[in-house]
Amino acid sequence: MTQVIVLNGGSSSGKTGIVRCLQSVLPEPWLALGADTLVAAMPASLRSSDGGIEFAADGTVSVGEEFRTLEAAWIEGVAAMARAGARIIVDEIFLGGGESQRRWRKALDGLPVLWVGVRCDAAVAEARGIARGDRAAGMAASQAEVVHRGMVYDLEIDTAHTESMECARTIAAAV
Amino acid sequence: MTQVIVLNGGSSSGKTGIVRCLQSVLPEPWLALGADTLVAAMPASLRSSDGGIEFAADGTVSVGEEFRTLEAAWIEGVAAMARAGARIIVDEIFLGGGESQRRWRKALDGLPVLWVGVRCDAAVAEARGIARGDRAAGMAASQAEVVHRGMVYDLEIDTAHTESMECARTIAAAV
Amino acid sequence: MTQVIVLNGGSSSGKTGIVRCLQSVLPEPWLALGADTLVAAMPASLRSSDGGIEFAADGTVSVGEEFRTLEAAWIEGVAAMARAGARIIVDEIFLGGGESQRRWRKALDGLPVLWVGVRCDAAVAEARGIARGDRAAGMAASQAEVVHRGMVYDLEIDTAHTESMECARTIAAAV
Amino acid sequence: MTQVIVLNGGSSSGKTGIVRCLQSVLPEPWLALGADTLVAAMPASLRSSDGGIEFAADGTVSVGEEFRTLEAAWIEGVAAMARAGARIIVDEIFLGGGESQRRWRKALDGLPVLWVGVRCDAAVAEARGIARGDRAAGMAASQAEVVHRGMVYDLEIDTAHTESMECARTIAAAV
Repeated sequence: MTQVIVLNGGSSSGKTGIVRCLQSVLPEPWLALGADTLVAAMPASLRSSDGGIEFAADGTVSVGEEFRTLEAAWIEGVAAMARAGARIIVDEIFLGGGESQRRWRKALDGLPVLWVGVRCDAAVAEARGIARGDRAAGMAASQAEVVHRGMVYDLEIDTAHTESMECARTIAAAV
Repeated sequence: MTQVIVLNGGSSSGKTGIVRCLQSVLPEPWLALGADTLVAAMPASLRSSDGGIEFAADGTVSVGEEFRTLEAAWIEGVAAMARAGARIIVDEIFLGGGESQRRWRKALDGLPVLWVGVRCDAAVAEARGIARGDRAAGMAASQAEVVHRGMVYDLEIDTAHTESMECARTIAAAV
Repeated sequence: MTQVIVLNGGSSSGKTGIVRCLQSVLPEPWLALGADTLVAAMPASLRSSDGGIEFAADGTVSVGEEFRTLEAAWIEGVAAMARAGARIIVDEIFLGGGESQRRWRKALDGLPVLWVGVRCDAAVAEARGIARGDRAAGMAASQAEVVHRGMVYDLEIDTAHTESMECARTIAAAV
Repeated sequence: MTQVIVLNGGSSSGKTGIVRCLQSVLPEPWLALGADTLVAAMPASLRSSDGGIEFAADGTVSVGEEFRTLEAAWIEGVAAMARAGARIIVDEIFLGGGESQRRWRKALDGLPVLWVGVRCDAAVAEARGIARGDRAAGMAASQAEVVHRGMVYDLEIDTAHTESMECARTIAAAV
């Protein structure tokens, strides 16, 4: 029985909507944690500094040493929550692709994980970022492909032509 | 030349996303004002009282006398902004259908208005409300049809199968 | 009987909290509109461009030609709402001080207006901006004094040592 | 050297503002996690159900079995993050007072923890809840005393007459 669902996809690929639908259709209560939770937990200074996470004018995102240190502890903690019995949906943007997956895979070792790739055409994601109104221009396009490099998934979905709820039902059927 | 664009559609039909895309693709700056702006401007007490706006457990919404009084002044003010030269996109939920349209039409008299109906299948809108996570269950479904009763449009779009940006381009072409 | 209350003060001086308390203690329903409402209504492009509003790294804010044009229409519209019968609380940051007041005074001509200066020590406002977490560093400090230059008030309050609710009661007593 | 700071106080007692100021004044990066993070991570259904957390009309909050199960795993995870090296500020509302503290104390066993009581006069907290505009009436008043029952603190602060930044400096000096 799956204990952790990891969704990986670029900005504006539709992960958050899928997570809410998953929490609605899955019969048991699942915790939703992810990149947004971690960034919100960090000091304001780390959200725009060399040591933290940096959002460039072209939409690319880079993270520094201090971000990585806190992130490593965060990943350990999320794994510990699952080991303590919580079902967890992780909603992530693997900027490092397969390298990011290896870090999570190591922490989640021994737990039943469902790895889900959330794909979305770059132009569609970019337009959805505009529609949402809170995403930097270029971010969705720059992440659309890079986050999937070197990844291994149990399941892949494409949100460009599928509603969040339908994606959630497909994932729930594989849990 | 269109001075006011009025978008009418039920909750979670996708109006706000279209508005942001419209502001992005239209060459001139347009102000976006609507039901959400007015409700946010009202006292907290009016958002859940007999005189104000009431969100029932089944998702239906009803408004009272005091809400109507403030709304009437609000409509006059938005029309005055347009007369003073601002281009305005009004993003509304006409719970009264054609009767609501008559109120706006009277206030906007003499101004070039583009009336746009934003339709979305009730089940799709309801699922999108879940994906957004901030809408009451049943609200989208209960409003999907009722807001279009007795309405006369210059243009109708269906968001169930069309992205916000594409809807925005269709509307922009008619401005 | 006062029809419009205009609160003017710098960023993080506590205006929004006072507005909510005013809406709570005043017996009649009042609409709350202001700088935040207008900025939210503008296109994303105007929030960071030469023609729009610009937030510099040192916290200073400057506005351009297109912003001014939309703002002028906005002011006309808010005045029209009051003339149509709505009681309105305007929550503003008069970057132009007395010059900004003249623009509003002209539009509100003939209406009974209560002008309220909301003062807050620059260091206190700056620290509150950090506590709120959503304000640019330096903004509160840079605006604390400049917004009051050349202003004429009916009432002045100081939020550095007075709670929002107490400020609201003082203002309500003068309405 | 303190690894975990636990702030306990009722709704609208000013914890979140203090946390942001703490993150700003502490020289090392600290993660801020707490009751709000956990509630946001839960399914929408758990936020208003018998098994979850319930906000009554009088402002009281009660939590059920499923909430407690997820919360227990959450606490384990936060402790694991600290053990993995992260400095963490926990921002909590101990509805169970000393009983809640025992749960956290057990999970944090062996870690250097600074326990901070955040007090605020009930009437002041209630008025601040109105000023914030997003808190249920009665919640602040009902929690002001109950969360401190049976608690043992290293440090107590009173926000009724002290700014967030000053509170943060007092806490930082004790870290």
